[in-house]
Amino acid sequence: MLKRKSKYTVAVAGATGLVGREMIEILEDRNFPVGELVMLASERSEGERVAFKGKNVLVRRLAKDSFKDVDIALFSAGVERSIEFAPAAIKSGAVVIDNSSAFRMDPKVPLIVPEINAHAMERHSGIIASPNCSTIAMVLVLKPIHDKAKIKRVVVTTFQSVSGTGKKGMDEFAQQTVALLNFKDVETKVYPHQIAFNCLPHIGAFLDNGYTKEEMKMVNETRKIMEDDSIGVTATTVRVPVFRCHAESVNIQTETKISANEVRAVLAGAPGIIVFDDPKKNIYPLAMDVVAKDEVYVGRIREDESLPNGINLWLVSDNLRKGAALNAVQIAELLIK
Amino acid sequence: MLKRKSKYTVAVAGATGLVGREMIEILEDRNFPVGELVMLASERSEGERVAFKGKNVLVRRLAKDSFKDVDIALFSAGVERSIEFAPAAIKSGAVVIDNSSAFRMDPKVPLIVPEINAHAMERHSGIIASPNCSTIAMVLVLKPIHDKAKIKRVVVTTFQSVSGTGKKGMDEFAQQTVALLNFKDVETKVYPHQIAFNCLPHIGAFLDNGYTKEEMKMVNETRKIMEDDSIGVTATTVRVPVFRCHAESVNIQTETKISANEVRAVLAGAPGIIVFDDPKKNIYPLAMDVVAKDEVYVGRIREDESLPNGINLWLVSDNLRKGAALNAVQIAELLIK
Repeated sequence: MLKRKSKYTVAVAGATGLVGREMIEILEDRNFPVGELVMLASERSEGERVAFKGKNVLVRRLAKDSFKDVDIALFSAGVERSIEFAPAAIKSGAVVIDNSSAFRMDPKVPLIVPEINAHAMERHSGIIASPNCSTIAMVLVLKPIHDKAKIKRVVVTTFQSVSGTGKKGMDEFAQQTVALLNFKDVETKVYPHQIAFNCLPHIGAFLDNGYTKEEMKMVNETRKIMEDDSIGVTATTVRVPVFRCHAESVNIQTETKISANEVRAVLAGAPGIIVFDDPKKNIYPLAMDVVAKDEVYVGRIREDESLPNGINLWLVSDNLRKGAALNAVQIAELLIK
Repeated sequence: MLKRKSKYTVAVAGATGLVGREMIEILEDRNFPVGELVMLASERSEGERVAFKGKNVLVRRLAKDSFKDVDIALFSAGVERSIEFAPAAIKSGAVVIDNSSAFRMDPKVPLIVPEINAHAMERHSGIIASPNCSTIAMVLVLKPIHDKAKIKRVVVTTFQSVSGTGKKGMDEFAQQTVALLNFKDVETKVYPHQIAFNCLPHIGAFLDNGYTKEEMKMVNETRKIMEDDSIGVTATTVRVPVFRCHAESVNIQTETKISANEVRAVLAGAPGIIVFDDPKKNIYPLAMDVVAKDEVYVGRIREDESLPNGINLWLVSDNLRKGAALNAVQIAELLIK
């Protein structure tokens, strides 16, 4: 899909952000055949150095002429920067793997979770999009169940950590927590309300239908990735006072009956998933246990007794790894295969 | 329902607990006609003093002979103490209002949310049960919708604060948070895992069907209170790192179509509810805003686009007030009416 080389020049746009740093770590950990690594960021981070394979690589300013000789450009610098700079990267001959939501629903742009719809990458025309963090984790779990019992409808409620908002979200949460424990006033800049010791049912802007952008991403991206618009999805996305990893409470209605044991078996055999489900021994997925893990952890698998064919489950995934950086690097791996 | 008096002797079993203290405050705030207040607790708290109407009342040890001349005994000392001591209270001539789950599903025991099923109190035979905290908040919101559009099925995921576990839950959460911010090890005694910066999909013991007791309370108590076993309910209950107030993400499927605006109108006219729903102005219910409030706050009301007749909403309620102490005192008020 890309001209075969022994080494590729890879650019990371947003190299100093939480996801960018994870991308760089993962490129190194997975031995991606990187010739040169071009680290790009906004003016604010220009001149910083980020470690890669034992060297401290200088971070350069993201510009339209940043992509000369770049084969693969990993973007994780927000929607606006993707819109502004991705076309320049493509023009320079790079394939863009975009972690932002800018192009995800563009019919010409494949939206890829490698374990699920790698085949859809073939139709790309310069940009491949990586889905929303909560969507990636959910579809990984839904797909094997869908293949077995056809999913009709999903009701999902998320518990999303502050790292989904980037470093500024983590800093605000930490500062507020410390302030409150010291009986000081809380400052809110990043979130509309205090996030310390509080849950906010508000991720992304509100749309006219009363849903947030984040909620509609889970609806629309799920259907696109699973290539089935008949799947009903309704979502409530909630920011919780947790630093890292997103959890989801997922209720699934299927066309045909599937037992909890069958779901466990199907998921145990599926790629990218760890079934972590022995509740009587207090074993179920927790954010604190899934930090830096590549897989989506699934537990609390049980039959929904309010329906003839229904399943409830609880999943946790590292939003910075499989939810973002790892999925993007896996797309890059497919690209050079 | 109780012999008419100008003042009643009221006992509070569990007077030094979080809910017991709220009960005492609420009795005073609402000017309940208390003649004598008998404060009862376990041996550990015997001899403490708790303020009531400007006096510091001595806490006595809960025993079978504690209920002489008591008219109303409010119990909030846990299942085992209710089972051990409620019969003695009844024998002494008191009516027991029990906040524990000990007798809730007993067919002879009315399970009461005063705004919803006050009529069911008439059949009591000495014990009236107050429902589970999350159930009370949910049924208050479901009932007006059920009356208008008949509810077929509910999918609920809760975000429950540590005060639901009592003072020991609050202390453990605070200690863990401070320890982690100081890079110290965390101790877990009350919860099976760290609750600071973490969400636990585990409230109450696990049953053989894979659900927790808390989840099945929401299923069974909802049907009993609403006197309709045809309502399907499936629940996932989650402990979140929040001190006080429980939130719930509720998905409701109705028999007939009801719009989001109709739900808002119906709930705005219902007792015990405040519609707090203007998301574009960042107005939606939050735990931090609902502390010490009597009403259940409801927002994020929107139509579920995955169904012909469905509604999503988000509610927050003070688990210690309407979720426990206030509901019990409201039952006592009905009793003397």
